[in-house]
Amino acid sequence: YRQQQEQLQELRGLAATTPDGTTLEIAANIGRPRDAQPAVAAGAGGVGLFRTEFLFLDRETAPSEEEQVEAYSTVLQEFAGKTVIVRTLDIGGDKSVPYLSLPREDNPFLGVRGIRLCLAPPYQHIFRTQVRALLLAAQLNVASLWIMFPMICDLRELRQAKSFIAETEAQLLQEGKLTAPVLPGLRLGIMLETPASAWLIDQLAKEADFFSIGTNDLAQYTLASDRMNANLAELHRPFHPAVMRTIAHIIQTARKLQRWIGMCGEMAGNPRASAFLLGLGINELSMEAGSFNAVKQVIRNTTTAQARELVERVLAAESSAEIEEMLS
Amino acid sequence: YRQQQEQLQELRGLAATTPDGTTLEIAANIGRPRDAQPAVAAGAGGVGLFRTEFLFLDRETAPSEEEQVEAYSTVLQEFAGKTVIVRTLDIGGDKSVPYLSLPREDNPFLGVRGIRLCLAPPYQHIFRTQVRALLLAAQLNVASLWIMFPMICDLRELRQAKSFIAETEAQLLQEGKLTAPVLPGLRLGIMLETPASAWLIDQLAKEADFFSIGTNDLAQYTLASDRMNANLAELHRPFHPAVMRTIAHIIQTARKLQRWIGMCGEMAGNPRASAFLLGLGINELSMEAGSFNAVKQVIRNTTTAQARELVERVLAAESSAEIEEMLS
Ligand SMILES: [Mg+2]
Ligand SMILES: [Mg+2]
Repeated sequence: YRQQQEQLQELRGLAATTPDGTTLEIAANIGRPRDAQPAVAAGAGGVGLFRTEFLFLDRETAPSEEEQVEAYSTVLQEFAGKTVIVRTLDIGGDKSVPYLSLPREDNPFLGVRGIRLCLAPPYQHIFRTQVRALLLAAQLNVASLWIMFPMICDLRELRQAKSFIAETEAQLLQEGKLTAPVLPGLRLGIMLETPASAWLIDQLAKEADFFSIGTNDLAQYTLASDRMNANLAELHRPFHPAVMRTIAHIIQTARKLQRWIGMCGEMAGNPRASAFLLGLGINELSMEAGSFNAVKQVIRNTTTAQARELVERVLAAESSAEIEEMLS
Repeated sequence: YRQQQEQLQELRGLAATTPDGTTLEIAANIGRPRDAQPAVAAGAGGVGLFRTEFLFLDRETAPSEEEQVEAYSTVLQEFAGKTVIVRTLDIGGDKSVPYLSLPREDNPFLGVRGIRLCLAPPYQHIFRTQVRALLLAAQLNVASLWIMFPMICDLRELRQAKSFIAETEAQLLQEGKLTAPVLPGLRLGIMLETPASAWLIDQLAKEADFFSIGTNDLAQYTLASDRMNANLAELHRPFHPAVMRTIAHIIQTARKLQRWIGMCGEMAGNPRASAFLLGLGINELSMEAGSFNAVKQVIRNTTTAQARELVERVLAAESSAEIEEMLS
């Protein structure tokens, strides 16, 4: 066991490169600025998902622009020279946020959440402050900032979000808080987590600079099953055939359209899924730092030919149990 | 206006046949046995969706086997010689059913509902009685009974439901309540309403005798949007590109696999969608009786070539608004 641990530790400084020379980016999911330093220490090549909810939850008032600039800047500085994907605020009616009066919803997971909430007139002021802080932090120019919108279903929503960002930049330039445009240096992309976005990925690729798959919500909506509902555990086994096919369609289409595609949901940190995702041609896997080495180990021991052969078999499988066996 | 009404009335006795000779079946959605006779009078060619919830809701005790046999038989008799598709019980935690202690769920539309509930051990006795009554009613042999399972996500669930039906038949034969097997004369199929089922339709076709698309839930899950949530109206415009593509994939795959495919959701009764569905090759449209004539009128005035050309345009469209204009 100890030998195994040592082997895993050695991986820290090594890239996730297959024996035949394909390299995947290994990035960290982080929830707070204080997660950044340990992620770097563990070998993170960047941040694939910086959740920003910590700034907004468990408090009585909305976070100020300054507070947010500070938080984003800290992470960008820790990842100097690398890429940091920041997901814009992703909350909904299941959260209690005293300074936003969110209406009670019958099905909050199917409600006004993510980008829907941020673009809804009653809450746009919250989004405005976040976008201002992100653009101001980008001005530091220490790391490459990518902004990612959650819960996008179609081009209309993506275009609306992008316009919102552009308008905000114009305001900051006018106010003199930005001395030059920062948008040309940023990338704007989306989380793929609604079934709709999977069906429309070719259209979304026209306006999105990058994609990242959020497997948890994607599975939840694909299977019409609340992933927190303990009575639906059978549907939520880790590799449902419908979810695997959706993921395959997304990655293969993105690659065909030459769009960068990552994954930041739970599956990205599961070493059992790594060869499958490699075979599909994914560019990046983003996960908790604790999973880096196990995932790297799989990648470093799988050829792309082996991975592609595995993809064929997984996509033909008829049950979660069958796929679990293939990926054991 | 009056002339228009008279024209629509004349359609009652006519088939939904295109100028080039393709005929679609026009069937009724009914909620109670008393809806059967008016549906026949309005020209229903059969029942595409007989919802059975009326038997189970707004009462203190579960409906008996006899009561259910009576209800199903009434409808089969009204539709003698035709096809009646009965959907098995489709309820979930959003309903209050005093004789079932359904747990409160955070997101009941993503909860234990439809076939999940019927196959869950605490509720199987309810499903058992319903299946017994359906098989006993089938023994009448007056109409063709097709049984349809709601909320199916994968083959495992479908196989479980089919085994349940087979076991129940064996019990009835043993009890002497059935004098001969009825299953060979029935068809067992599924409602396609989860995104998972759309992705797995080729696998489901191995075990399903027929399919019917439930557009309301399909849209709700595809768009990750509660269709009762008034704040999500923009996503729930009638023809979302992602939903149209899912429907196209379903119908085209079903036809390629030579499976009968109908539609019983709201879109089936919307004459603006009829040409699109015709172009995809759908076999049947099931709707409220009040929509028959308007839908027939479209079908009788559209060639399959025109319909196929429309399909191409709709599938390339990037927004609900754009599709609405094409289908006006
Ligand atoms: Mg999500
Ligand atoms: Mg339904």
